[in-house]
Amino acid sequence: MDKKHIGIIGAGVAGLHLGLLLRQHGVDATIITERNPDEIAGMRLPNTVAHHYVTLDRERSLGVCHWPVEEYGYSHHHHYFNTPQPLAFSGGFTSMSRGVDYRVYLPRLMQDFAERGGTLEYRAIAADELPKLAARFDLIVVGTGRGPFGQMFEPVAEHSPFNRPQRALCVGLYTGLRPTDPPGVTLSVSPGHGELIDIPMLSFSGKVDALLLENVPGGDLEELARLRYDDDPKKFRMTVLAKLEKHHPSVYDRIDQARFDLQQPHDLLQGGVVPTVRRTSVDLGDGKIAIAVGDVHSVVDPVIGQGANIASYSAWVLGEEIVKSNQFDALFCERVDRKREERVLGAQRWTNFMLMPPNPEFLGLVGAMSANRALCDEFTENFNYPERQWARLATPARIKSWVAEASARA
Amino acid sequence: MDKKHIGIIGAGVAGLHLGLLLRQHGVDATIITERNPDEIAGMRLPNTVAHHYVTLDRERSLGVCHWPVEEYGYSHHHHYFNTPQPLAFSGGFTSMSRGVDYRVYLPRLMQDFAERGGTLEYRAIAADELPKLAARFDLIVVGTGRGPFGQMFEPVAEHSPFNRPQRALCVGLYTGLRPTDPPGVTLSVSPGHGELIDIPMLSFSGKVDALLLENVPGGDLEELARLRYDDDPKKFRMTVLAKLEKHHPSVYDRIDQARFDLQQPHDLLQGGVVPTVRRTSVDLGDGKIAIAVGDVHSVVDPVIGQGANIASYSAWVLGEEIVKSNQFDALFCERVDRKREERVLGAQRWTNFMLMPPNPEFLGLVGAMSANRALCDEFTENFNYPERQWARLATPARIKSWVAEASARA
Repeated sequence: MDKKHIGIIGAGVAGLHLGLLLRQHGVDATIITERNPDEIAGMRLPNTVAHHYVTLDRERSLGVCHWPVEEYGYSHHHHYFNTPQPLAFSGGFTSMSRGVDYRVYLPRLMQDFAERGGTLEYRAIAADELPKLAARFDLIVVGTGRGPFGQMFEPVAEHSPFNRPQRALCVGLYTGLRPTDPPGVTLSVSPGHGELIDIPMLSFSGKVDALLLENVPGGDLEELARLRYDDDPKKFRMTVLAKLEKHHPSVYDRIDQARFDLQQPHDLLQGGVVPTVRRTSVDLGDGKIAIAVGDVHSVVDPVIGQGANIASYSAWVLGEEIVKSNQFDALFCERVDRKREERVLGAQRWTNFMLMPPNPEFLGLVGAMSANRALCDEFTENFNYPERQWARLATPARIKSWVAEASARA
Repeated sequence: MDKKHIGIIGAGVAGLHLGLLLRQHGVDATIITERNPDEIAGMRLPNTVAHHYVTLDRERSLGVCHWPVEEYGYSHHHHYFNTPQPLAFSGGFTSMSRGVDYRVYLPRLMQDFAERGGTLEYRAIAADELPKLAARFDLIVVGTGRGPFGQMFEPVAEHSPFNRPQRALCVGLYTGLRPTDPPGVTLSVSPGHGELIDIPMLSFSGKVDALLLENVPGGDLEELARLRYDDDPKKFRMTVLAKLEKHHPSVYDRIDQARFDLQQPHDLLQGGVVPTVRRTSVDLGDGKIAIAVGDVHSVVDPVIGQGANIASYSAWVLGEEIVKSNQFDALFCERVDRKREERVLGAQRWTNFMLMPPNPEFLGLVGAMSANRALCDEFTENFNYPERQWARLATPARIKSWVAEASARA
């Protein structure tokens, strides 16, 4: 082909990192998305995402790492287990992570993309324009489940063990929390009731905290996923505070109750995710193909913060292959899939593992980490490399072997 | 585990390269095989194998490249198409290939393996000793279809399009052929009737020629796969000569009829191969697993000489992972498969493509190669990298794109 032109459906992190990578290599790219930057900035909280350093390294290589980690980043994971004898311990990253509200992040990268010659089309896609769209591009990349493309990719049963959400989510951006020292994400577990992931996050008002409450269906915290803020903000706040005090006390202790509130009334997201892996390519006929990235390909529960990082990774692998290839067919997709599969599946399996009641060996690992900083550092570092984490956790024998190895080193 | 011990069933090229690699890394390895070196040396011709330089590089790294390419190797592929206007052209390798009779090759490597601390057990395996064998080793590698292990791996329908051989083979080691200049393999095609692969080969009597006649079922050459040498050696010779003269004249022209004969009466192999890809691992229970290498995993028709090279490659990938791992489970096998899959499938698909009637684009490629040495060199070089060759040949669009690219460079 004379000059490649790639059509990208969706302006999430996958679509934007891909588009920016393609522009960096002089490949024509058009992103079609429903919301313009102003609409994104004004929308309800879409998610609460932390970028691990592997993702920040991609931003650096694209020249779009606009929020320096020295100011907005964090270096640690603080673990808290709300057991009769509470366990509290921390692990460090070798390089900092960072959380930025995607209503701030995505518009800025859309601007970068446009400034670098990328084309943005703000509109919905009608089902009957698929053939016309396919004809415009050499390859269509689908980075959103919305619209007619999102429904084309079939779930892969082998990698999709659940048919309903495993956690009832209540996610909000809150003011009024004292930062941890050192700066870090808190991973608090209330056995039988769920997890709280507290992520320091940059948003419109400056530094806030994303409180991601992952509530076990049937547990004491599940009601938070249905409690309406708009009906009675004070009741909502009081209920959240009471639940935090009981189930996630290390986070509760950092709250200044006078300032504790959602940053904005619509900075709240409630619901649930059905973890699903889908087939990654669809034949559009006439020699054209659509390939999936991000959540359309593999959607995970947010409990260990892998979704956006995997979406960026997966888009990156795809982008590198697009740059190298001039044939976008089944063999191309097979190659892309083979390259990204280990990490994508690693993230999916590790996440699903964390949603299940822990096996005794994992409880042993938690105990060992509480007494072995190097082991906890490795566990923390592996948030960047989910395939390595999964290679450690996939079977009871693997976990035992990891603990034994770490003990021998200590 | 304290010290790994790997059990290898079968002493083919995969089993031996794997065993030698493991010993190089201090890993305990036992090869169980039915024939001892003397029995192998005395057996009927088992195959006619050329090692491409990627395989020779593995031998060099193991210190078992005992037959220097300067003396026994070859540098070229000589193509001949027996069309009304015959086409003859050659392509060169960047590094030499070499053919050694496996009845010479395997016994020497068995000796290397034993000298380096590997254990060889010469015996058949009874079906009822599988649990006992599994208990002896941390992992069982199956490198032979013989015996009870060989039947455990199920064919993968998606990658196994045939249910019968696509060529009727008549393979022999012959004396009486003048070498090509420069030394090379001849790939002669008689459209509609089949191929002849003439490989310079080192055997017991010195340099001989492997004539691998790949005969299309129903064509004029098919009878060679059934013609018995022992019944009437002279008639066999005369029939082969007549067929070569008619269908593969560039090889026929190099024959000294007075000396033309099989090196030994049993240096002849007739039959056929059903190209098949099989599942690569089997759960043996009690936390033990068996993993396949070589023909048990993926068996190809010998028409483009990929089988042994892929077997060695596949064993090498497995060996590197064995050295790195201490967990031999489903995730381990998945990782090995992912690493070796592109090349293994590339060899299988490319081979199967060569057995089918050529598409017009491939005929165009042949014509282009006859006029473009650089293009033919690339085609030749890719015998080392079947995944690259397949990426060039997988679709008519890919072939056209390759030819266009090569023409633009020329």
